[in-house]
Amino acid sequence: MSVLLEQEIYAQPALLAQLLDCELDHIQQIVRSLPMFRYVVIAARGSSDHAATYAAYSWAALARYPITPATPSLHSMYHLPPRFDEALVIGISQSGQSPDIISVIEEGKKQGRPTLAITNDGNSPLARAADHVVLLHVGEEKSVAATKTYTAQLAVMAAFAAVFSGDQSAIAQLQSLPEAVSAVIAGSQAIAERAERYRYMNQCTVIGRGYNYATAHELALKLKELTYVMAVSYSSADFRHGPIAAIESGSPVILIMPEGSVLADMRRLAEDLSHSGAELLVISDTDAALELAQTRLALAVSVPEWLSPITSIIPGQIFALRLAQVKGLNPDAPRSLRKVTKTV
Amino acid sequence: MSVLLEQEIYAQPALLAQLLDCELDHIQQIVRSLPMFRYVVIAARGSSDHAATYAAYSWAALARYPITPATPSLHSMYHLPPRFDEALVIGISQSGQSPDIISVIEEGKKQGRPTLAITNDGNSPLARAADHVVLLHVGEEKSVAATKTYTAQLAVMAAFAAVFSGDQSAIAQLQSLPEAVSAVIAGSQAIAERAERYRYMNQCTVIGRGYNYATAHELALKLKELTYVMAVSYSSADFRHGPIAAIESGSPVILIMPEGSVLADMRRLAEDLSHSGAELLVISDTDAALELAQTRLALAVSVPEWLSPITSIIPGQIFALRLAQVKGLNPDAPRSLRKVTKTV
Repeated sequence: MSVLLEQEIYAQPALLAQLLDCELDHIQQIVRSLPMFRYVVIAARGSSDHAATYAAYSWAALARYPITPATPSLHSMYHLPPRFDEALVIGISQSGQSPDIISVIEEGKKQGRPTLAITNDGNSPLARAADHVVLLHVGEEKSVAATKTYTAQLAVMAAFAAVFSGDQSAIAQLQSLPEAVSAVIAGSQAIAERAERYRYMNQCTVIGRGYNYATAHELALKLKELTYVMAVSYSSADFRHGPIAAIESGSPVILIMPEGSVLADMRRLAEDLSHSGAELLVISDTDAALELAQTRLALAVSVPEWLSPITSIIPGQIFALRLAQVKGLNPDAPRSLRKVTKTV
Repeated sequence: MSVLLEQEIYAQPALLAQLLDCELDHIQQIVRSLPMFRYVVIAARGSSDHAATYAAYSWAALARYPITPATPSLHSMYHLPPRFDEALVIGISQSGQSPDIISVIEEGKKQGRPTLAITNDGNSPLARAADHVVLLHVGEEKSVAATKTYTAQLAVMAAFAAVFSGDQSAIAQLQSLPEAVSAVIAGSQAIAERAERYRYMNQCTVIGRGYNYATAHELALKLKELTYVMAVSYSSADFRHGPIAAIESGSPVILIMPEGSVLADMRRLAEDLSHSGAELLVISDTDAALELAQTRLALAVSVPEWLSPITSIIPGQIFALRLAQVKGLNPDAPRSLRKVTKTV
């Protein structure tokens, strides 16, 4: 395996286990020490922003906290930051380097609010700016596209949700996650053969809902970064409010639909798309969902729905990697990107 | 003009003037009667959601309120709604019919929070569910794609921002907006000729930042609905964190970059894209920005940046209409869509 991206995808189960070992107690300490807050502001970009989207569902579902996405340009360009009264302010960034994300944390601190950084670099400016730092413990991510840092960020957000909820069974579910991720990776070997069919796909739509709304965004980003396919992501509801018009016979649509509360809604959409002649690629652990697909990206094991984004992204990561290889692209070095992106 | 969409686009200046006449005092009354709140939850889909995105910038910039997008599936499917302590809860919907949006307002009420509906139908279930209702006063929107209801929603959000700020000059700026929209429409006649060049475009990227992040989303949606072009929208910062990899020589990119605080950042991006050989379409009121473009979608007049989304979308609406016509599509009846979309 000389492809770094492949190594980083395959390392995820062990790294998730290590992360939980290193940070679960620490996250409990942080939660105990936080002052009262009523809502949560999160600043993040790219894959990290998809981890924030996951928090918008998991923190609300398990602990009832609403999540507000930060508007970094209001801090860094307009110099008109919002008031953060009674908020917890969080920055998520693999590198911890992006000035716009740091500016939100600094504003939180200036307003006397508790701040938290979630990053892979404890010496980064983001880590230094925050009251509390949770590290990802995944080692350096050498490939440009985020994989192991993304699932680690999801696991950190899941750990906070579980700890906030005080539900010991949620923590136990989280602790059995690395094993499930390992089984899903093992069950995804056949994807390499299916990737060839999509050699000349130049656009596609990716749809998820609820917890897996984040997965839709993350998979669309992996496809753009690694395969240069113009991939667009939606929730099934937003998709029906307009973008569905762009779908015609043969349009490829990737549906992320593991077992759970939104599966029935996703199935109705899959059936409608199937009637329109769309080409469906389905990521699921249920046969009834997979049967609707031209390409089945089966999840070998099931996990509780609130943790399913951490397994559901795996077949997507592997599909994007294999498609890049089928297209003769270098998955480790997408054009126009560097590992650390600093935006203001 | 037998195309309804065209009539509705051209009616916008008069309708915006009428809306401000009818609702500005009412919005002042509502603001006076609201209890203290610290942040704002907004539930919306499609174009209405882009009006919510505009509020995330204008309400924060003028009145420092953070905006939290609602996660309707947590209400309607998971039955695990977040806690809305100290929030103002808003639903925006042209039809006021979508059950998922109504469920968020109902939850706000159940939790004893103030609720506000912004809708074109005062008899809709959304209007009936809310404490306060602001109507759009634009008459029935007959074309499926939202145009006049979108700019009316933006004007309502702008009016609240101005009233919250207590700044009389902001209200005066808002009142001179209908005239500016009229001038921009008059200055957009040449777009019909340029549309032909894009007859065989099948995908494109739309970028805006700050106030015009909303405009990027709305224009991408109009292109998908009316022309079936797979259009993807980003902020310039999010775009640099990954999606830029999918841009190659000839890739069409629409940049929304009127005069303002984010113009310098947008110009740096335009220059980088120009070096990559991208095909640039620029919506702007500044020559320095328009000069970078293969296609100049000039804004005939300038307005204060915080109001610029209401003028900047106009050339986009007209471009999408003309491109639909060049492609022989019926702009009033996009496939797969109905005027009222009810999602749960």
